[in-house]
Amino acid sequence: MQFSRKDLLGIRELEAFEIEHILQTAESFKEVNLRSIKKVPTLRGKTVVHLFYEPSTRTRTSFDIAAKRLSADTFSITASTSSMVKGETFLDTVKNLEAMKPDVLIVRHSASGAPHRIAARTSASVINAGDGMHEHPSQALLDMLTIRQHAGRLEGLTVLIVGDLAHSRVARSNIWGLTRMGSRVVVCGPPTLIPPHMDRMGAEVHDRLQEVIPEADVIMVLRLQKERQDQMLLPSLREYAVYYGVDRDKLRHARKDVLIMHPGPMNRGVEISPDVADGPSSLILDQVTNGVAVRMALLYLLIQREGAASGTADPSV
Amino acid sequence: MQFSRKDLLGIRELEAFEIEHILQTAESFKEVNLRSIKKVPTLRGKTVVHLFYEPSTRTRTSFDIAAKRLSADTFSITASTSSMVKGETFLDTVKNLEAMKPDVLIVRHSASGAPHRIAARTSASVINAGDGMHEHPSQALLDMLTIRQHAGRLEGLTVLIVGDLAHSRVARSNIWGLTRMGSRVVVCGPPTLIPPHMDRMGAEVHDRLQEVIPEADVIMVLRLQKERQDQMLLPSLREYAVYYGVDRDKLRHARKDVLIMHPGPMNRGVEISPDVADGPSSLILDQVTNGVAVRMALLYLLIQREGAASGTADPSV
Amino acid sequence: MQFSRKDLLGIRELEAFEIEHILQTAESFKEVNLRSIKKVPTLRGKTVVHLFYEPSTRTRTSFDIAAKRLSADTFSITASTSSMVKGETFLDTVKNLEAMKPDVLIVRHSASGAPHRIAARTSASVINAGDGMHEHPSQALLDMLTIRQHAGRLEGLTVLIVGDLAHSRVARSNIWGLTRMGSRVVVCGPPTLIPPHMDRMGAEVHDRLQEVIPEADVIMVLRLQKERQDQMLLPSLREYAVYYGVDRDKLRHARKDVLIMHPGPMNRGVEISPDVADGPSSLILDQVTNGVAVRMALLYLLIQREGAASGTADPSV
Repeated sequence: MQFSRKDLLGIRELEAFEIEHILQTAESFKEVNLRSIKKVPTLRGKTVVHLFYEPSTRTRTSFDIAAKRLSADTFSITASTSSMVKGETFLDTVKNLEAMKPDVLIVRHSASGAPHRIAARTSASVINAGDGMHEHPSQALLDMLTIRQHAGRLEGLTVLIVGDLAHSRVARSNIWGLTRMGSRVVVCGPPTLIPPHMDRMGAEVHDRLQEVIPEADVIMVLRLQKERQDQMLLPSLREYAVYYGVDRDKLRHARKDVLIMHPGPMNRGVEISPDVADGPSSLILDQVTNGVAVRMALLYLLIQREGAASGTADPSV
Repeated sequence: MQFSRKDLLGIRELEAFEIEHILQTAESFKEVNLRSIKKVPTLRGKTVVHLFYEPSTRTRTSFDIAAKRLSADTFSITASTSSMVKGETFLDTVKNLEAMKPDVLIVRHSASGAPHRIAARTSASVINAGDGMHEHPSQALLDMLTIRQHAGRLEGLTVLIVGDLAHSRVARSNIWGLTRMGSRVVVCGPPTLIPPHMDRMGAEVHDRLQEVIPEADVIMVLRLQKERQDQMLLPSLREYAVYYGVDRDKLRHARKDVLIMHPGPMNRGVEISPDVADGPSSLILDQVTNGVAVRMALLYLLIQREGAASGTADPSV
Repeated sequence: MQFSRKDLLGIRELEAFEIEHILQTAESFKEVNLRSIKKVPTLRGKTVVHLFYEPSTRTRTSFDIAAKRLSADTFSITASTSSMVKGETFLDTVKNLEAMKPDVLIVRHSASGAPHRIAARTSASVINAGDGMHEHPSQALLDMLTIRQHAGRLEGLTVLIVGDLAHSRVARSNIWGLTRMGSRVVVCGPPTLIPPHMDRMGAEVHDRLQEVIPEADVIMVLRLQKERQDQMLLPSLREYAVYYGVDRDKLRHARKDVLIMHPGPMNRGVEISPDVADGPSSLILDQVTNGVAVRMALLYLLIQREGAASGTADPSV
């Protein structure tokens, strides 16, 4: 089976069979890694450009390692180094890149929808690596891969997402993806940080963490963006930790086999306690490892999709 | 035929047959790209260093893509990251790089002649990627390649260069190159921005744009460096646009098949109107695409030149 | 013989036979370079991460060239781009990197011992590329390689190290290494910049440069960190140059075949005069060239060490 999309802009538009296809492809790349074959020539001669208008090391490095393990060439453009500082418009920068004939543009931008605008104007594949408060699809895919690896399935699981739901593109992508794959998603956080439409996305909304923890197969802890503290109407990070920080005490009534996840970077002692972050239930570093495999799968599927230009010489021509 | 120069420092010193040789080599790399064979092992094991003392994404990325498509390894040194911040002299930085045995140094510097100083002190090939207000030879070569691709020739064409001639290294390199190849070059801009020696370079000088537009086969619009506004003795960018901005109205009396070029990044609505920049006569994105081919040609010709050290093992030794 | 260490954290813990093994391996890589075979597939598929918490172009570029000549993939993380700016702890950043399964982490950090903390928590090899005022082992190894290349041996030589001994990790690593290899090490500098324990490290301490110069086979001039000027209790750089700057006048009574070294970047006219830096006795650029060979040797030995995971597919599986 071949993938037929040019771009990966969000989880929302993906069908279950497409998510399944990506996860299976990622699993095959995980096997490759486990057997220590770190580099395959699959995308030799392909050009992958990182176009990052927000700082990121974690996601960019993960995509970069993924691309190089597939033997692609990578180039990095950041907002501060780009010609935008010389007054060029965003779309002129993109058209310019396009004229250099890249195969994939990996885009992070603070404006929701920026990757979509780019995708509509380029024949290259575009991967959304996080756009505003909208989506972060590769993160949700690596989260689903990690859950399935440890729980054996996604269907019928209860996944509890805790924290600042309002500003989290990670949460949004996971809600779309997990509900599509048959999980039950419960969200919990300060009422001021839960947007009204979250139930319409398919998630159940709770505001008392202790009550929902016993039902969870997976607890996904969101990063607290400290600059949001005002909006939470909470007087302090300490108070946030008391009510919504996931720590050993709150996990007393959790299932014995509950799985703990966090997209990173963590604020230890705020949304998650160090003993939980480093404890036996934590999948946090597995998420990072799986991120490389998921991103290898995405690059592979988009570049090898039906109808994409061949990147190697056809010997019969 | 082999190239015999060690360095590419300017267009001025090139003979017509050398320009011809570079353009033909670039055309052969264009064909390679069109057939989607994006990577060739030609320069495998060669080391290309970007030494950029002025910010640039466009030119640096273009050279970087060119180098990697030829399988060279690339390294990037920028002024802010270099040891110059620790008080090292410019020449000590260069000697240090030289001691790591690179094959090509690609140099951008705000001082005219900086690449020449480097070239005289290193056995590596040096490519001038823009020095002060002096030359930007790879830009002129990609411009000539683009004109020839669309007009079929350079000889006998009238190329009109519009804008801030005084500060443009792009204009200078193009005047040297185009006149050498038999084009007629007309320059036009605010009298305060046309240096007195331009006619001695072989260009005809005009200051009324409307009068010369009908004669042009090609109009090359220069970027207005807004920080020069004072020197233009013009009250506003708006006024500049009225007199020297290339827009649909000014093109009413142009040839039907006039070709429009701009080295980028553009100030839309200042030196060029959006409908002209994006219109059917615009070659602006072709210039970018051709930039990669020209830079592949330069790297290839300099590294493979007569007498250069062999970069692959001699199996007979 | 195979190397058995996972990490290279300092010279102090190395046995003479290990230093000898590294130097011999580096010499074989030098030969490869001299014969212009610039790239070997030895580390293809291996991942080398530069984790630099202090600015450095010289050392990072040298390691990067070394890694790419062995066909490894390299990734660069700097403090300013890392998630540390988002409040992540140093160890979380490291664990994250570790989860992406790199083979080697090359670490520079302003805190002595930082590479050791990382090494204890990762299965990747760690190379100390300079930690605080503690060690800079690859610099000492390239210095020893350079001395041996030009003097024919290390044993029995008198090496004079001049300058700011108190703050120099280069000096410390060289004192450990040279004494281990049988050289006599004499240190000389302003009394305020010679720490009391230096004789216990095996070095002889002098404060009058003129008196010890005639005994030296090698003079290693240290960079003066100008920000230390206060601590020197010297009124000016000029006065420093008078007493401790190595210039032609002070070398009048030196051996005819004395060798002059400097780890760079140089303050010309302060700790070393230009005529000495560029003179026939200077090995300063040889040091830079040898740096690439030594770093190739270190990467090769650590990755190919006994018990390290194989990085290529086992064809029999």
